[in-house]
Amino acid sequence: MNNGQKPSVLVISAHAVDFVWRCGGTIARYAKDGSRVRILDLTFGERGESAEIWQSRPGITVDEVKRIRREEAEKASQILGAEIRFLDFNDHPLVMGMEHYLILVEELRDFQPQIVLTHHTEDPLNPDHPEVSAATYRALRCAQVPGVKPETTVTGPIKTFMFEPDQPEFCNFNPDVFIDITDVMDLKVQAMKVVASQTYLHENYTRRAEYRGYLAGRIAGDKNIKYAEAFKRFAPFVGKFFS
Amino acid sequence: MNNGQKPSVLVISAHAVDFVWRCGGTIARYAKDGSRVRILDLTFGERGESAEIWQSRPGITVDEVKRIRREEAEKASQILGAEIRFLDFNDHPLVMGMEHYLILVEELRDFQPQIVLTHHTEDPLNPDHPEVSAATYRALRCAQVPGVKPETTVTGPIKTFMFEPDQPEFCNFNPDVFIDITDVMDLKVQAMKVVASQTYLHENYTRRAEYRGYLAGRIAGDKNIKYAEAFKRFAPFVGKFFS
Amino acid sequence: MNNGQKPSVLVISAHAVDFVWRCGGTIARYAKDGSRVRILDLTFGERGESAEIWQSRPGITVDEVKRIRREEAEKASQILGAEIRFLDFNDHPLVMGMEHYLILVEELRDFQPQIVLTHHTEDPLNPDHPEVSAATYRALRCAQVPGVKPETTVTGPIKTFMFEPDQPEFCNFNPDVFIDITDVMDLKVQAMKVVASQTYLHENYTRRAEYRGYLAGRIAGDKNIKYAEAFKRFAPFVGKFFS
Amino acid sequence: MNNGQKPSVLVISAHAVDFVWRCGGTIARYAKDGSRVRILDLTFGERGESAEIWQSRPGITVDEVKRIRREEAEKASQILGAEIRFLDFNDHPLVMGMEHYLILVEELRDFQPQIVLTHHTEDPLNPDHPEVSAATYRALRCAQVPGVKPETTVTGPIKTFMFEPDQPEFCNFNPDVFIDITDVMDLKVQAMKVVASQTYLHENYTRRAEYRGYLAGRIAGDKNIKYAEAFKRFAPFVGKFFS
Amino acid sequence: MNNGQKPSVLVISAHAVDFVWRCGGTIARYAKDGSRVRILDLTFGERGESAEIWQSRPGITVDEVKRIRREEAEKASQILGAEIRFLDFNDHPLVMGMEHYLILVEELRDFQPQIVLTHHTEDPLNPDHPEVSAATYRALRCAQVPGVKPETTVTGPIKTFMFEPDQPEFCNFNPDVFIDITDVMDLKVQAMKVVASQTYLHENYTRRAEYRGYLAGRIAGDKNIKYAEAFKRFAPFVGKFFS
Amino acid sequence: MNNGQKPSVLVISAHAVDFVWRCGGTIARYAKDGSRVRILDLTFGERGESAEIWQSRPGITVDEVKRIRREEAEKASQILGAEIRFLDFNDHPLVMGMEHYLILVEELRDFQPQIVLTHHTEDPLNPDHPEVSAATYRALRCAQVPGVKPETTVTGPIKTFMFEPDQPEFCNFNPDVFIDITDVMDLKVQAMKVVASQTYLHENYTRRAEYRGYLAGRIAGDKNIKYAEAFKRFAPFVGKFFS
Repeated sequence: MNNGQKPSVLVISAHAVDFVWRCGGTIARYAKDGSRVRILDLTFGERGESAEIWQSRPGITVDEVKRIRREEAEKASQILGAEIRFLDFNDHPLVMGMEHYLILVEELRDFQPQIVLTHHTEDPLNPDHPEVSAATYRALRCAQVPGVKPETTVTGPIKTFMFEPDQPEFCNFNPDVFIDITDVMDLKVQAMKVVASQTYLHENYTRRAEYRGYLAGRIAGDKNIKYAEAFKRFAPFVGKFFS
Repeated sequence: MNNGQKPSVLVISAHAVDFVWRCGGTIARYAKDGSRVRILDLTFGERGESAEIWQSRPGITVDEVKRIRREEAEKASQILGAEIRFLDFNDHPLVMGMEHYLILVEELRDFQPQIVLTHHTEDPLNPDHPEVSAATYRALRCAQVPGVKPETTVTGPIKTFMFEPDQPEFCNFNPDVFIDITDVMDLKVQAMKVVASQTYLHENYTRRAEYRGYLAGRIAGDKNIKYAEAFKRFAPFVGKFFS
Repeated sequence: MNNGQKPSVLVISAHAVDFVWRCGGTIARYAKDGSRVRILDLTFGERGESAEIWQSRPGITVDEVKRIRREEAEKASQILGAEIRFLDFNDHPLVMGMEHYLILVEELRDFQPQIVLTHHTEDPLNPDHPEVSAATYRALRCAQVPGVKPETTVTGPIKTFMFEPDQPEFCNFNPDVFIDITDVMDLKVQAMKVVASQTYLHENYTRRAEYRGYLAGRIAGDKNIKYAEAFKRFAPFVGKFFS
Repeated sequence: MNNGQKPSVLVISAHAVDFVWRCGGTIARYAKDGSRVRILDLTFGERGESAEIWQSRPGITVDEVKRIRREEAEKASQILGAEIRFLDFNDHPLVMGMEHYLILVEELRDFQPQIVLTHHTEDPLNPDHPEVSAATYRALRCAQVPGVKPETTVTGPIKTFMFEPDQPEFCNFNPDVFIDITDVMDLKVQAMKVVASQTYLHENYTRRAEYRGYLAGRIAGDKNIKYAEAFKRFAPFVGKFFS
Repeated sequence: MNNGQKPSVLVISAHAVDFVWRCGGTIARYAKDGSRVRILDLTFGERGESAEIWQSRPGITVDEVKRIRREEAEKASQILGAEIRFLDFNDHPLVMGMEHYLILVEELRDFQPQIVLTHHTEDPLNPDHPEVSAATYRALRCAQVPGVKPETTVTGPIKTFMFEPDQPEFCNFNPDVFIDITDVMDLKVQAMKVVASQTYLHENYTRRAEYRGYLAGRIAGDKNIKYAEAFKRFAPFVGKFFS
Repeated sequence: MNNGQKPSVLVISAHAVDFVWRCGGTIARYAKDGSRVRILDLTFGERGESAEIWQSRPGITVDEVKRIRREEAEKASQILGAEIRFLDFNDHPLVMGMEHYLILVEELRDFQPQIVLTHHTEDPLNPDHPEVSAATYRALRCAQVPGVKPETTVTGPIKTFMFEPDQPEFCNFNPDVFIDITDVMDLKVQAMKVVASQTYLHENYTRRAEYRGYLAGRIAGDKNIKYAEAFKRFAPFVGKFFS
């Protein structure tokens, strides 16, 4: 891939800090390895994923919530070694249409990723997530055809992976990829800790990484895997040898 | 559930009298038991589920059809022991967006149900139904987070069930819950009879209830079950013992 | 079906020449047999399926692309023996709503097909396709109820089939119908050849027809089947004998 | 099929009278139409489907039960117009192996059916049924290759259909074929009535046929369909036109 | 269920201590509540689940391994409050047939459970598990018909649940039941600790219970749930109210 | 994998030359790259996959057929660069049990593969294939636990892939791996040509490789891929980066 260059990675995340819980370790893996990683935050999760802020500060405005969430997301992305951009669509419900798809096309064309990470296609408990997933697939298609925004450069081949939802089996999420994040778990933990507005998740997502690490280690027969993140491939693997 | 109080039940129904065929017996069971039951009728089914009216009264206006359907729905809900509210969105096709989702959030916040009944996620023969199902899941999520409409009270835990479509296997509807409606079947029959505009369904839905009763009775090993209604759980059961 | 008359066939196609690759042989079979066949082209595929034009003629306008694609589609449909109508919605992304659904209802009411062919419900690689599929199902439902556009005549029973996407297994397309197109394969090849803007597909879709012919011949135990097209039924078969 | 001759039909049934409930109407349809129909009864259902006999006649021997069941099955098959053969394997549990598969191969080679009807591949409530289904698929394969029992004639193309289990959705049975049995329902009822050992099923399977008739009539848009039986195709349909 | 009596629970476990990891908490819940709970251990897991013993004691005989495993299983079952019986079939591979099914029938008839817990139907990583699951379903069916072993008493209605495999998503295990084991987690931990031959699992199954507790707590909206076990229902729920 | 050494590959094939059609190119890829590749032929396909021999040489004995098939298989494996071993179980039907599983365990322990290729879990048209698949999974499990045949060395981590059946969609085979065999396609063609007893397949499997090459090339965005073979992973991918 990419003639010796490290692949660039674009993470398309529905709410401010989804990326931390779901693929923070994988972001850190790639960043540490020299890849350019950019997070595209579609919303600040200002309504639906900021419960602690709303509950602890009655009367707070949406703009203030956004500001807090933005800061957290920026700090977390810095820790992980990634750039971040905020599109500031509205969450809960996030309803996307033509204009949003075209913004995503521009973002894809601009960043020219080789790898895209995004939400799973199903999440009945949090419909903003599949909304982003579906929009991403529309945008990925449009970004690669020359007739859409013909003045910009189409994207090349992109490998897409969907990260794990909070309740994986409920969402029919059946992972076929585990990324071993053992050597960057400390960064994921640090990133989780700056995301003060959802403290109840810190411990649970450490545990989740251990759980996934256990499964991955058993499959690979590798006891050194202590922490992992789970993904689902979008397209089949193509290669000259099995991976 | 609900500290000794009877759970309140909200039925979210796409068309005027969907609720009668699909869960009329279950509504009657809960109402008879002391639960407060409210039906939310998103449309009067004025275009798509009023064929007999349109065919027998050429030249009738949409408003007249709505009036007839409203009366039928009101009578049927009274027989079953439920309140009813009409949102008067348009059916066939019913196309929902942000504004409709937020109305549903308000309705959920206002009624504070412990149980919600709605349509199945798939129905290729009647796409208004999955439109309502998808909207309900969006609204359920938004209703429980404090950042959406922060001036109203979030909902507590809600158990959601999807009722049976007309052609269940065609819709990949695989029921995992049967409610025994034997002792309220007379009320369901009465309610079906007031819904004059779809007479061809009366006999068939009595038969359907017998069919489901047969299946339920075989599963439970209980010959007293003569009539049943079929549902699909939304979320897993959680408890200290098996149910 | 249709009291001795040949069934009329409506093909609902997302982009200009989708119909050639996916069901050109079947169109020719029906046309040759005396059926009236009409293609409804929702877009010219002017942005997303005209890469060769955009790449070979830098600076070309969308209107010019549309004109080229229209001509190709008209020629191809003539070769196959079908009428064609262009609705000129926009592709890539094709986003349909109420107004588009109602146009489809009118088209269905006007043509009164006994058979409808359209896209498969899933195609993550080309989301315009399931957009059309979903819209078609909405329209099929609305076209058969008298309350929608009561001034026009409702459609009768329609059999619907979904044609094969480019990457069938990726789209969870599991065909249950193979149409033997051996005796009209020459027409399909001719039609493919006029569609100059997607030359890379000619050879591949001849090969695809051979592949499907091989599978169909093995299933039917009929070595005369050299070429076939694959479809997925929408609704179960109903008859007095097995088909 | 069969050059103008009526297709011969082989019904492979796990227990004595499974064929009556599951496809009695379809058997009668074909027999009435001039087809030769043969039922292959693998067991008498002497242990697992004769509860009424065991309960009403304590101390009865297995051989006596078999004799009763054989008589019922013979009478029922006569009413429906079919031949019947008993293989007398043991039921509950029915465990099949090499020798049983080869007996089925001989039966297929001997009868040379064009259509085979058998059980669905899944039935967790009655594992004898999928045991027969799996054995039938093994035998169908072996019967068509010349190297197995090379002294007998291989079978030609066979169309196979699986009939409906008692609890269809529980068994993931999703029917894609409905056979309209309205004009032979009287024969099915007669046949059910001679099967005295399972009286509780009579009424329920009349109701089932009405339920399936309702679904089939709605799909086909044909109000004359009052009774139907549901099936699942084994292999895709292959033809020159849609069925 | 059971007229006020506590339901008796039968756990059918492939290998010696499967029951500890998979449903030890649930066993303890029922035992503590006054239910009679019996574990049926089909093998000692002497070959396939005793790696630590084989590795640490080269030259050990199968009988010695069995003895060690039996002791562990007995101690663990005592801690949880359950009886235990060993059938001593052979594991790895465990291949069951007629004779084993009939032994299970006898065990079911003898114990007369109201609840059965067993393995999931799929486990490609450990095929002994689905072998037990399939055998259990055969036995459950045979145990309830009077013609099998007519000299013993048939079983009444039984509710069956499948416990979680080691790699749930890999096995297509999609839980629809979570049992809150918070108040008996100490007993599960104790039981795990006596099972010295598989030490690497202790920590992981504590973590698993926390993971499941997190999911269950989120679904139920109940922060008191700290530990849970996941199950899949065999048959639909039947009742007069939703569970 | 394997510390710089090339991975050894074991192909477990039901019938004599299944390996040629299904993974001949992939075998050649690995052999050419320096891997040791061994084919394990469970049967000679002497009954079920030798139709041309039986038809052209009436009166031939099974042993003669086996001899012919063995020679073909040996020649084909030589061309591809692989070793071959024949277990000479009987095909059509191939029914495997304890003894066969243990032979496979020995073969796995003896060869110590890092990669195993075998049949897909479903193939209703050719039940010998899933019989082998299921046996392979049993053997893979048993081969890795020290308590089975403790005198031999357990296998290390193995990656398993299932190759494509003749009718992929019919078998619910959904490939997630495509191996580019463009540069060894000449060897696959040569190997197919020595397999004289199934000439009708030569052309079709060249076409199949082109079809799969087309799909793989489109997914990877690589026009150099002309021929490919399709596989399904058994276990999730585990790695430090995406593949």
